[in-house]
Amino acid sequence: MTSRLMPEHLLARIRVVLSRPSHPGNIGAAARAMKTMGLSRLYLVNPLRFPDPEADVRATGAVDVLQQATVCATLDEALGGTIYAAAISARQRDLGPPPCHAREGIADLLTEAAKGEVALVFGNETVGLSNEEVQRCQAAVSIPTNPGFSSLNLGSAVQVLCYEARLAAYSGQRLPAQRGVTPSSSRAATLEEVEGFYGHLEETMITTGFHDPAKPKRLMPKLRRLFGRTRLEIDEVNILRGVLAALRDGSRRT
Amino acid sequence: MTSRLMPEHLLARIRVVLSRPSHPGNIGAAARAMKTMGLSRLYLVNPLRFPDPEADVRATGAVDVLQQATVCATLDEALGGTIYAAAISARQRDLGPPPCHAREGIADLLTEAAKGEVALVFGNETVGLSNEEVQRCQAAVSIPTNPGFSSLNLGSAVQVLCYEARLAAYSGQRLPAQRGVTPSSSRAATLEEVEGFYGHLEETMITTGFHDPAKPKRLMPKLRRLFGRTRLEIDEVNILRGVLAALRDGSRRT
Repeated sequence: MTSRLMPEHLLARIRVVLSRPSHPGNIGAAARAMKTMGLSRLYLVNPLRFPDPEADVRATGAVDVLQQATVCATLDEALGGTIYAAAISARQRDLGPPPCHAREGIADLLTEAAKGEVALVFGNETVGLSNEEVQRCQAAVSIPTNPGFSSLNLGSAVQVLCYEARLAAYSGQRLPAQRGVTPSSSRAATLEEVEGFYGHLEETMITTGFHDPAKPKRLMPKLRRLFGRTRLEIDEVNILRGVLAALRDGSRRT
Repeated sequence: MTSRLMPEHLLARIRVVLSRPSHPGNIGAAARAMKTMGLSRLYLVNPLRFPDPEADVRATGAVDVLQQATVCATLDEALGGTIYAAAISARQRDLGPPPCHAREGIADLLTEAAKGEVALVFGNETVGLSNEEVQRCQAAVSIPTNPGFSSLNLGSAVQVLCYEARLAAYSGQRLPAQRGVTPSSSRAATLEEVEGFYGHLEETMITTGFHDPAKPKRLMPKLRRLFGRTRLEIDEVNILRGVLAALRDGSRRT
């Protein structure tokens, strides 16, 4: 079933569950990471220290996420009412759900979010999630890392997954990026205007002796290739022709 | 031209440049984020405090990245030898390169990495990158965020982009970039070569009286924007400087 929910409503259905986090700084970092991506529902299972000033400092403008966080005694409590949970885990688990990478895992998560409440479950900084915790989840998601150093910070892992969630939620309606189009100050130059510049350039180069039309050495084709790929704007054509004119005038004055 | 480089060699061509970072903890977090994704080349432009024990603590197992970091006095120094740099910037800039989102921006970055050294440039935690810094880059890349709270932590921003870089490097299916550009005849110009051309151009325009540095009217930023989006090749830099030199000589001869 395809979602007809707005992206922000899909994101609002995602809980971020931190199981037994040790460092309040990481809780704050997770809150900040969530809010930057439009998520706000933080669940903490047996945090070692919470609330804590260190969490507030690292959350910066996302203290509201901390204030609304739900503190739970068990993972089951944090997952109450969800229809789907993805365990974030680097290691392959015995009897755990089949592992997949973050991007695919998030796509699945959002498909489920169209139907009900879902969760991303992160383990303790040092020991990760227990096998029992992973087995509570319907999916196991890993973030692809350097096999020689896979020790992602907890806040960073939350950031990467929330980032993927935002992109996936908005992908349905994302407009194609303004590829190759500069936030332009002026309109694109017309063919005639660009040709006028080429003519001016060639003439100036001939006058100065740099360019001999009898032995062209592909000079003009090379310059056409250069300027052709920039998609010149009219202001730019005017600047370039101004430079050429000034150089001519300068040479007359000398 | 398509890359036949191994993914790890592509990633090794990416510099992560932090301009004027204020908090050593963020430098450490950036190092850790890089290493988890297989990147290792950290450049620091005028860090407020570095080296610093706080950076080491946050880097955890990535202290080697900090130890090998290059500290530079200017952004130009950090970009020395690169053929392409992407500014990470949330805000739209006057005369900056065309903005694109992280995923597309990283695809372009890796296409360029197949040809030479490239860089991801991050600004200061509070003020970001200056317009001058963004104008030094050929692309402006933003991470899609919640418009109501776009304050991504510096380490988290590095994490997201390095994550995208790793995925793109290993995807094997990234090829399409270089839209509408004729296959290149010569290698990409380095930052120094392009800056040498800008210096030559500016000097020539001043000599002829076209450009008054006291009343610049944003002339150089506009010309940087024009040539910045073309990705000049070394042959083209040589032709353009040849034209400028001929115009100077021509004016002397007259």
